Amino acid sequence: MASATGDVVTMDKIVSLARRRGFVFPSSEIYGGLGSAYDYGHYGVLMKNNVKARWFEAMIQERDDIVALDSAIILNPRVWEASGHVEGFSDPLVDCRTCKLRFRADHITDPEHDEVRCGRKPSKRPGETPECDLTEARAFNLMLSTRLGALEETGSVAYLRPETAQGIFVNFKNVLQIARRKPPFGIAQIGKSFRNEITPGNFLFRTREFEQMEMEFFVPPDDAASWFEYWVAERHGWYARYGIRGSHLRVRPHSAEELSHYSSATSDIEYLFPIGWSELEGVANRGDFDLTQHTEHSGTKLEYVGQDGERYVPHVVEPAGGPDRAFLAFMVDAYDEEIVADRPRTVLRLHPRIAPVKAAILPLIGKSEEMVAKARSLTDELRRRYLVEYDDNGAIGRRYRRQDEIGTPWAFTIDEQTLEDETVTVRDRDSLAQQRLPIAGVDRWLGDALERNWRTPKAD
Amino acid sequence: MASATGDVVTMDKIVSLARRRGFVFPSSEIYGGLGSAYDYGHYGVLMKNNVKARWFEAMIQERDDIVALDSAIILNPRVWEASGHVEGFSDPLVDCRTCKLRFRADHITDPEHDEVRCGRKPSKRPGETPECDLTEARAFNLMLSTRLGALEETGSVAYLRPETAQGIFVNFKNVLQIARRKPPFGIAQIGKSFRNEITPGNFLFRTREFEQMEMEFFVPPDDAASWFEYWVAERHGWYARYGIRGSHLRVRPHSAEELSHYSSATSDIEYLFPIGWSELEGVANRGDFDLTQHTEHSGTKLEYVGQDGERYVPHVVEPAGGPDRAFLAFMVDAYDEEIVADRPRTVLRLHPRIAPVKAAILPLIGKSEEMVAKARSLTDELRRRYLVEYDDNGAIGRRYRRQDEIGTPWAFTIDEQTLEDETVTVRDRDSLAQQRLPIAGVDRWLGDALERNWRTPKAD
Repeated sequence: MASATGDVVTMDKIVSLARRRGFVFPSSEIYGGLGSAYDYGHYGVLMKNNVKARWFEAMIQERDDIVALDSAIILNPRVWEASGHVEGFSDPLVDCRTCKLRFRADHITDPEHDEVRCGRKPSKRPGETPECDLTEARAFNLMLSTRLGALEETGSVAYLRPETAQGIFVNFKNVLQIARRKPPFGIAQIGKSFRNEITPGNFLFRTREFEQMEMEFFVPPDDAASWFEYWVAERHGWYARYGIRGSHLRVRPHSAEELSHYSSATSDIEYLFPIGWSELEGVANRGDFDLTQHTEHSGTKLEYVGQDGERYVPHVVEPAGGPDRAFLAFMVDAYDEEIVADRPRTVLRLHPRIAPVKAAILPLIGKSEEMVAKARSLTDELRRRYLVEYDDNGAIGRRYRRQDEIGTPWAFTIDEQTLEDETVTVRDRDSLAQQRLPIAGVDRWLGDALERNWRTPKAD
Repeated sequence: MASATGDVVTMDKIVSLARRRGFVFPSSEIYGGLGSAYDYGHYGVLMKNNVKARWFEAMIQERDDIVALDSAIILNPRVWEASGHVEGFSDPLVDCRTCKLRFRADHITDPEHDEVRCGRKPSKRPGETPECDLTEARAFNLMLSTRLGALEETGSVAYLRPETAQGIFVNFKNVLQIARRKPPFGIAQIGKSFRNEITPGNFLFRTREFEQMEMEFFVPPDDAASWFEYWVAERHGWYARYGIRGSHLRVRPHSAEELSHYSSATSDIEYLFPIGWSELEGVANRGDFDLTQHTEHSGTKLEYVGQDGERYVPHVVEPAGGPDRAFLAFMVDAYDEEIVADRPRTVLRLHPRIAPVKAAILPLIGKSEEMVAKARSLTDELRRRYLVEYDDNGAIGRRYRRQDEIGTPWAFTIDEQTLEDETVTVRDRDSLAQQRLPIAGVDRWLGDALERNWRTPKAD
């Protein structure tokens, strides 16, 4: 996280850049916001779309053994009875009779994790405010509920899903039958989930409304342990492939006390966020818990039956990540400050396939009609395939800095020489090297550059 | 809608194909479903992603004047007071004291629209059941509500957004400042919305949970009328560009009585669904209503101030479509049945950029290791850039039919001649024409085919 100027990347710097360049805004800001809710602005949408597209490619496009799903956010409420969420998806809360604040009981006894998870200032932590007079803990369900039907008072209670995974389990039989699958195979889904966290915080790290990228991989029971190892390595490799430094990633196996009752093994892929090592993605061996629960509650047998009569309940290995948290990690890891020609610059050294804009097209002098026309024409050609940006607003140095701050890997500059020999300058965001290319070859050059195996130039 | 065999495309046929091939399933099916909620299966996700991607390209990638946004689903509740939704977003409902059914009062007096909007069987419509004894109408708010905060009984009420548009209006100032925009410019957003419809129905046409693709275009007041015409034409053209027949599309201007109180003009782009001409997308001239409301309620001036001191509240032109409804229209319009070599085939003549799978790679004889290896190697090459499918399961005729039913435009077949001369056969989904290509040229051929201006071969 140390940048070239020796500074440390703080969450404040990331929040500030995200806001200044329109990646992420506090939600409903003109109405005073809504605690820990955020809206993605232009570059944020482009970049988060890229994060999701890379996950989808890795899960679906590049493989034969995983199919896609997009299940509803509001499912039949019996799904959440079967999954155990109605009964047990809760945090233990305690109230302070003096200061009227409410705390998670497990955070009080586990102060080490407190800053990461709750984001409250330490001065407000019980134990440091000796006058706190705490109640007994009581369970607080984290699911948001609503009522469907014609009148609020008589409508039936339903829940906003707290995870996308259950929408996958209840479609297991559909996929088995219709997609003609046999284990090992997976079902992958991206979508919003909601949790009524009482301690959200740390920017995009923990919010009430968030997206998930979850994949449930169904395997023969005897193979679950080896598939678990496979998916830990695979998901770790995905973050590295798109530019996260190896020294900022680690795998942390859960201790026996941390494990969910249904899981025989879980490992977190952790990232060195500015708030310390924290979960980026969890990979869990869930066993046959989910399919067994839904079989019992629905009366529909969720099992695999082979043509030879072989019959078993598959075990499930689940890599569960989040596009918001991945977005934050990519931003933090890419953030750099350096001195160039005696002036500081801020640059997001994003992987080109994560970067919101692939290239900027800049006519050197905005006033020359001929240069503008050539730049416009190049822009029109490139945007048939790529997200590019035309900019003729301001001094060229300022335009470069703007593109550096949003992480645009390449800038094509149209100058006086272009009018003479039909070449343009391409500037590399990271090395700052410039070279000339024929304008007619830019489209192909950009395509090749995006397909090259790209290595981050950042020190590990 | 008449297919080559003379049959009419019915909603039942679409629902059946969607289920049979894993495009769309009833949600929570093993628990008896949840009225009018659907889960997208593998091909449905791929195709709906394409619909959204084409919209995003047309709005963002191909233009300079629109930026992207992704605002939260749960906004500060004051947003919905300002927008008028808390007060006025309601349907008038009447109850029947005899049969205990509940109806929309406006459907009773407007029976012509009833089947489209409510999907109830005609026999259950009041007026045809003379014993119905109706109550007075009462207002029923369509927003789903929830409670945020630590305890249900004390948490604050919040709403699931009934439209994405308000998330755009409350970010108007952020975009104006940070994206350095001046009118005319637009903000585009894709995302889920929720409406507690008491009469959902007709498959994906009307559901409680649905996605929207909305764009708010901010213009100088005097230009609003011409921009309105521009966006009606532009959006009509988008559906045609991706294969909807001109004879199945029409523009229907709202009558004075239909117009919202704030709108000076609205036109629906209608599609000839199996249920009759129905709204595919609405384009509205919303005037300055929204920005004025939010200025009053938030105390933040939402206006444009030019460098020369020019100052005005922009007017808004809004094209508001839905990926689910567009998905349904693309499916209906592409659906065809014909007789080929004395056997019926069902084919989805989808535009290649809408089709879920771009190409299938089929080794002619699954048992030949050499053919399988060549087909695998071609698959691996193509999937670096395209969503393709390898299939060696079953007779080649059956594999073709399967690809026809999911709308795959091209199939590459590896046969014995491939082993001799390194060529493959490419089969065209629509013409059924076959030609041979060098296997080394398939990647380029497919890229070119996808970029060609593609015209649907369907009779208009």
